[in-house]
Amino acid sequence: MEQITIKEIARMCGVGVSTVSRAINNHPDINPETKERIMETIRRYNYVPNNSARNLKRAESNAIAVMVKGVSNPFFGPVIQTMERKIVNKNYSFVLQQVEEDEDEVAMAAALEKEKRLKGIIFLGGMKQRPWESLKQMPVPCVISTVSIHLPEDVENCSIVSIDDEAESYRMTDYLIKCGHRRIVIMRTAEPDAGISDKRLAGYRKALQKHGIAYDPELVVPMHSDAVYYSIENGYEVTKELLTSDRDFTCIYAISDRMAIGAIRAVFDAGKRVPEDFSVAGFDGLDIARYYRPSVATIAQPSEKIADETIRQLFSMIEGKEKGRKVIFPARLLEGESVLKL
Amino acid sequence: MEQITIKEIARMCGVGVSTVSRAINNHPDINPETKERIMETIRRYNYVPNNSARNLKRAESNAIAVMVKGVSNPFFGPVIQTMERKIVNKNYSFVLQQVEEDEDEVAMAAALEKEKRLKGIIFLGGMKQRPWESLKQMPVPCVISTVSIHLPEDVENCSIVSIDDEAESYRMTDYLIKCGHRRIVIMRTAEPDAGISDKRLAGYRKALQKHGIAYDPELVVPMHSDAVYYSIENGYEVTKELLTSDRDFTCIYAISDRMAIGAIRAVFDAGKRVPEDFSVAGFDGLDIARYYRPSVATIAQPSEKIADETIRQLFSMIEGKEKGRKVIFPARLLEGESVLKL
Repeated sequence: MEQITIKEIARMCGVGVSTVSRAINNHPDINPETKERIMETIRRYNYVPNNSARNLKRAESNAIAVMVKGVSNPFFGPVIQTMERKIVNKNYSFVLQQVEEDEDEVAMAAALEKEKRLKGIIFLGGMKQRPWESLKQMPVPCVISTVSIHLPEDVENCSIVSIDDEAESYRMTDYLIKCGHRRIVIMRTAEPDAGISDKRLAGYRKALQKHGIAYDPELVVPMHSDAVYYSIENGYEVTKELLTSDRDFTCIYAISDRMAIGAIRAVFDAGKRVPEDFSVAGFDGLDIARYYRPSVATIAQPSEKIADETIRQLFSMIEGKEKGRKVIFPARLLEGESVLKL
Repeated sequence: MEQITIKEIARMCGVGVSTVSRAINNHPDINPETKERIMETIRRYNYVPNNSARNLKRAESNAIAVMVKGVSNPFFGPVIQTMERKIVNKNYSFVLQQVEEDEDEVAMAAALEKEKRLKGIIFLGGMKQRPWESLKQMPVPCVISTVSIHLPEDVENCSIVSIDDEAESYRMTDYLIKCGHRRIVIMRTAEPDAGISDKRLAGYRKALQKHGIAYDPELVVPMHSDAVYYSIENGYEVTKELLTSDRDFTCIYAISDRMAIGAIRAVFDAGKRVPEDFSVAGFDGLDIARYYRPSVATIAQPSEKIADETIRQLFSMIEGKEKGRKVIFPARLLEGESVLKL
């Protein structure tokens, strides 16, 4: 194994060799940001400043896989970015594996683990089926990230890091009802989905119940299963159909911001207005929700915190310091111009 | 190396073992989509149906690295998704490596190649400096994807697959001028960037020249270098400042759709309107450009074709069938509600 040289580190960082040397030796005469950048590159490439260390045998190849359902979902972009950086900084390699909407991510992860001798696995999104029997067989620690399913007590090698989807969906629905809406469409997956969609539906139902509003299955509207799930286009097409149906409603609550944006555009394209004719709310807290016209009421997930804690939890299990557990972060309701107070 | 079993393939695909068997044996009694999904999973996991083949030694580990500058840029999402699928289908593994804005991606790729013995490298975005001397040293084939820099004749191990950024930027600017705009702000990177931003600026200047409009450096407005490049927030903040300056202009041409969306929202937040007071145009052809209010005039890149050809070209070089070459795809101008015809 050839070792990376100080010259290469310097080139990668766009600085001179002497600057790298100053960073390594904690010399005060260096810009703190430059120093941080150099030190990160050094960690990333496992650079060993001492020449004699170059012949040390390199540690065995360590890989962490991230199994992601819906990699083109912009909500996952910054989460994956943070995870990659942290994994590489720990001198592990980062394997990204996409999972198609109807594939079984746990079976795929098991196969990948056999092939690559992974040290840990992260599941991002998905988890439509309750996967515990297969997960208990997994020979390496796992973290289910951004999905708040129930963690059975006898599962020791798996953690969950997420918001509480049911409680946050309750928060949003409760807010919409307090704004005066009683006929609220919820736009969710076409099939049962224990991972995310069922939880958000449960929170919606609970809020209706608390306010004494009867649950009307007619107002539960499925995404199109032949278009990309949670996409703008899906929200647009579903809303277009909804507006020509004779269903009576004043508000659309889509369980992703991108679907909510598609819904808003469909309302305007049908010659109606948001929020004057229909209110619309989303979920996730993407930047576009804030900058759309109208801005979209949403539940902002703390995606940076979730990504950080996912990695911390995984390495803590890899190092045998902790057993699997569930870590739940609170989210925030962001009001938006898209919701009318009746 | 344990081999994956037919049972595991069946579970991953959510079908029975007999269905997998029908797919493998080309039995007519199977839904074509199900068959395609099963065959893809079989390729992905290198499943060998013949039992006797299980003891064959597995081919050496093959990895392709994708070096991406700006992984949270939604333009790259579907491109990465397509590349990953195609690489995995060829039984190569997919390594995703992020590159920070000011890091040297070629030096990083060289270090990664040393460490992982890559079979090929894809550069997605970036390439601010002309990297030819380092690229010529690279021991494996490379493809520079989505960046249309000049390819010197003596570089044989590297291809470029992209749109023609200068020509497409000319197309957009020419369109804006034909709509009656003569004072057009261009919003681009803060520093020189041979990869994308300089080319788009060159196309803008060429169009001005063709129409006899003097180039005014005051109308070249840099993104903030302390915020995420090409982001909505960056476009918003830059436009907010621009609107309080005394510069005279009727149109803002941002070289990314997300910056254009930030610009539009900033115009409205300042109490003005798009397109009545200011026209705005973007670049890339993201779905949100079509669904924003107003929809955003943009240059739609054929990202699927670029991703396909990048992979085809890379494997053709790996197999020794082709030398490096430049492949340019035409893009399309999409008109939008964001541009007023004066």
